[in-house]
Amino acid sequence: MDAPRIDWDARRIDLDPQVFQEAVSEFRRACGDANVVTSGPELERAAKATIPDPRPPSAVLRPGSVDEVAEIVRIANRFRVPLWPVSQGRNWGYGSGTPVLANTAVLHLGRLNRILEVNEELAYAVIEPGVTYRQLRAHLDAHHPGLWCDCTDGPPDGSVIGNALDRGLGVTHYADHFGTLCGLEVVLPTGERLRTGGGPEGCPTWHTHKWGVGPYLEGLFTQSNLGIVVKAGVWLFPKPEAFASFTFDLARPEDLPKLVDAMRELALSGVLTSACHLINDVVTLAVLAQYPPGAVERYSRLPDEVLAEMRRRFGVPVWSLGGGLMGTRGQVREVKRQLRRRLAPLGRIMFVDDRIASLGGRIGAMARGTGAARALAAIATKLSGRSVEMLDAAPHVHSVLKGIPSDYFVRHAYFKSSLPKPERADPDRDDIGLIWFAPIAPMTGPHVERVIGLCRPLFEKYEFDFYAALLMQNARSMIVLMSVFFRKATVEEPERARRLYAELGAAVHANGYQQYRIQTGGHAALAAKVPGGVIFARQLQRSADPVGILAPGRYGI
Amino acid sequence: MDAPRIDWDARRIDLDPQVFQEAVSEFRRACGDANVVTSGPELERAAKATIPDPRPPSAVLRPGSVDEVAEIVRIANRFRVPLWPVSQGRNWGYGSGTPVLANTAVLHLGRLNRILEVNEELAYAVIEPGVTYRQLRAHLDAHHPGLWCDCTDGPPDGSVIGNALDRGLGVTHYADHFGTLCGLEVVLPTGERLRTGGGPEGCPTWHTHKWGVGPYLEGLFTQSNLGIVVKAGVWLFPKPEAFASFTFDLARPEDLPKLVDAMRELALSGVLTSACHLINDVVTLAVLAQYPPGAVERYSRLPDEVLAEMRRRFGVPVWSLGGGLMGTRGQVREVKRQLRRRLAPLGRIMFVDDRIASLGGRIGAMARGTGAARALAAIATKLSGRSVEMLDAAPHVHSVLKGIPSDYFVRHAYFKSSLPKPERADPDRDDIGLIWFAPIAPMTGPHVERVIGLCRPLFEKYEFDFYAALLMQNARSMIVLMSVFFRKATVEEPERARRLYAELGAAVHANGYQQYRIQTGGHAALAAKVPGGVIFARQLQRSADPVGILAPGRYGI
Repeated sequence: MDAPRIDWDARRIDLDPQVFQEAVSEFRRACGDANVVTSGPELERAAKATIPDPRPPSAVLRPGSVDEVAEIVRIANRFRVPLWPVSQGRNWGYGSGTPVLANTAVLHLGRLNRILEVNEELAYAVIEPGVTYRQLRAHLDAHHPGLWCDCTDGPPDGSVIGNALDRGLGVTHYADHFGTLCGLEVVLPTGERLRTGGGPEGCPTWHTHKWGVGPYLEGLFTQSNLGIVVKAGVWLFPKPEAFASFTFDLARPEDLPKLVDAMRELALSGVLTSACHLINDVVTLAVLAQYPPGAVERYSRLPDEVLAEMRRRFGVPVWSLGGGLMGTRGQVREVKRQLRRRLAPLGRIMFVDDRIASLGGRIGAMARGTGAARALAAIATKLSGRSVEMLDAAPHVHSVLKGIPSDYFVRHAYFKSSLPKPERADPDRDDIGLIWFAPIAPMTGPHVERVIGLCRPLFEKYEFDFYAALLMQNARSMIVLMSVFFRKATVEEPERARRLYAELGAAVHANGYQQYRIQTGGHAALAAKVPGGVIFARQLQRSADPVGILAPGRYGI
Repeated sequence: MDAPRIDWDARRIDLDPQVFQEAVSEFRRACGDANVVTSGPELERAAKATIPDPRPPSAVLRPGSVDEVAEIVRIANRFRVPLWPVSQGRNWGYGSGTPVLANTAVLHLGRLNRILEVNEELAYAVIEPGVTYRQLRAHLDAHHPGLWCDCTDGPPDGSVIGNALDRGLGVTHYADHFGTLCGLEVVLPTGERLRTGGGPEGCPTWHTHKWGVGPYLEGLFTQSNLGIVVKAGVWLFPKPEAFASFTFDLARPEDLPKLVDAMRELALSGVLTSACHLINDVVTLAVLAQYPPGAVERYSRLPDEVLAEMRRRFGVPVWSLGGGLMGTRGQVREVKRQLRRRLAPLGRIMFVDDRIASLGGRIGAMARGTGAARALAAIATKLSGRSVEMLDAAPHVHSVLKGIPSDYFVRHAYFKSSLPKPERADPDRDDIGLIWFAPIAPMTGPHVERVIGLCRPLFEKYEFDFYAALLMQNARSMIVLMSVFFRKATVEEPERARRLYAELGAAVHANGYQQYRIQTGGHAALAAKVPGGVIFARQLQRSADPVGILAPGRYGI
């Protein structure tokens, strides 16, 4: 039998229909008829993604155990049917659950959703890939209230492991999700199983000593295709004695480089330890609001004057910064002092505790009431200089910075949609068009300004709103996360978004910058750009996966 | 031509003398006659190590550039001459610069000793493998006084990169040396070159964004043999506003588990961030003193009553803890408060600032003087409850915790030597017998107590001093670092030390624990113990190194 036939230009695997049918029969035998989907609404759903032109899978396989995963992998090898493992498939903006190549079979790990262990003393959990942020936090709240976990401000029903393996970023001091992953069980592309760490069976440091003994292998299973992670240790942290969040409004947009430099200095000196987010007006407005009535039909990009009007209406600055502070009461007090000292000259800083956050929420509710409540709310908003919507947002911002996942923020994806924001966002279901573009820069004012300077004019050229969130990846690096909002229902916006995305990638690359994470439509370009590292990774991949069944094309490998 | 012939039982490579001579001629052509050593004192020196029965190399090759490294690798492939890369060869206690297999040619990278860049804003240096801790710190002090680096309390002339690639541990909050390595240039076993990180040429996040894009590969080059690191980024940190060190004497040895638990809680909650060292009496005495006169000839292990007498004489507790505190003045104040609150019930805590540390040193000097100075020193030691030797040590302890490398501590290796402690320690030169044994345990009282309980009786059984330093590797893991001091001059001590080492390894493994780092004499045992991970690593290694010329046997691979 041949290796899988791949048409790289068309980004498609050409399956022999008869062989594929035999494989499907075997898959059904391995994990049950109900868990092998080759047609119908579930397959259609799996083919959906917010990016332009996602590639449809040939099947969705839903194993219920690690043994079933291994059996599927062995069958895939036998019949040369490539697999695309996803944990929950909620990699929104990066391709959701769709593969790089059409006809790759999605291996959906959502049924492997057990929280296998929580170690309170050592503050870690051992979980399966189907476990979501919402599920993990609810479990901790119910059974281990002394422990907190990180989360993203993305989908609460996203997979904790999936995000970490794509090296996603959260919001607390444990925001580096791959950095806080420790001890993996992996099904290799041959179907064999590997425990990382080099310790004996049952080794108690498997989930506490990140590097293990011998070569550190866990990095191989991130942003790549050398194995399927079926179990992982995830570090948690003890509930802090004190917690506060802060928001900071930059007074003059031209001081952005100064603010970035201040953030780096605060981070390098150990004052700022959580992953702060520095967001522009479009980000804030996308969270708080939607395109004004009628605007969706009229504009591909909000004209400057409309944007300025929305800023005024919602009390939104051009750039604002937010983050969480935790530690002992004394530590939090000192960090506040340092932030005030360093940031106050550049704008307005406000610290929020649990009481203030919930007050903000209550005022928001009152403002939508009548009579005296409404009048009081009007006074409060006047005094605080915040809009009702911003006061409404306060408790959500405050709580997500504690690592409590929230449906609130994902709804920003509906900014340019004609649908109202739903209670539970699902951009795939609702045909939202959204691509994340995420180059990373050294966290210095000039570098961040330069990346923005490269990208912003392209957003203008292609007539899309310039959405930019600057995320502290560590004390030295800042992700310049940009989102292209486009309307899938139109004929030309997806194509225009695709062209913008390609030009953005080329522009940052030509200027020496790399991306931190890439949507599936951009993986092929990665291979073209950086042959050296990719060639070595491919060589390792081939030795681990001689038939080539695991996620072909992922991150260019 | 055949692959290298390896006799694994004898731990030896059988070289064909004629082919080897041809290879040597080519090596000489590549890096100059003076830099290829195949006989004489330099080769004899390279065959020395503190461990029992080190394996002698066939040659020492000293390339002067990365191109020469690549050329040597190509020649080694052509003639099937395996290479053992070392940075400085000062991996004392873990095999120094000697290979796992006799006749491996040492590839000594000491001439690649350039500090290529120091980035003050982003706090990193880019260095070559020959750069030592002493050199890096002196360079920073002279040219970038606003930056500090971490160091170990081991040899100041050890390689910064070498230690990080063996995943060594330092003393500050940047103690995880592999954790603070970012961006590598590697000569692969084929002679090709690889830049990690996945960015384009000149990418400015190469040394700031640890994970890069695509699979994270850097872990493959640690504790293994998949490539030769010839350049690396090393993270530095800004000189803190405030620094203090602390020492804590545990009042009751039976409270050790309580102390370990307190350390974990302080670390998990972000109060203790530097890698604190909790050391037993033998460690402290080895630093401060030597075997009493005549004892070296009489004892293989100091009898309990002699040890107790030395503790009294030098004012040394059974267990003491030390570490550095840095941050803003307010942060350091708060951490002191928390340490006092948490540790004071268990013993005596003392905070040391620059003034107190230098005062300690001055009193030590006075005590060795005469008349009034000596009398004053006597009063000071009485009041402080410390011996002159402990006061003498104070400035060294204080300064190493700032990351300033020191010759002071390495001299502990001469504890059981009949030589006096030299100004510059060199245990290889002085035929000191010393093996590090370094299992790692979850940082809980019961786990640490259990590992000690497994090992201590074996030290007694084999009649060696029980030297134990408990090092915080991270907030969840503690290295139980033990040293076997033995006299190389005797016939039977090396063999007895070897047997103790083997039994220690078997005992911790049988109880589920792993080691954090292993001396070259123990690498083969690792392969026997954990087939799964090693088999996968071997498979990757073979694909990167088809001829098998890079460090055969390293960490069992």
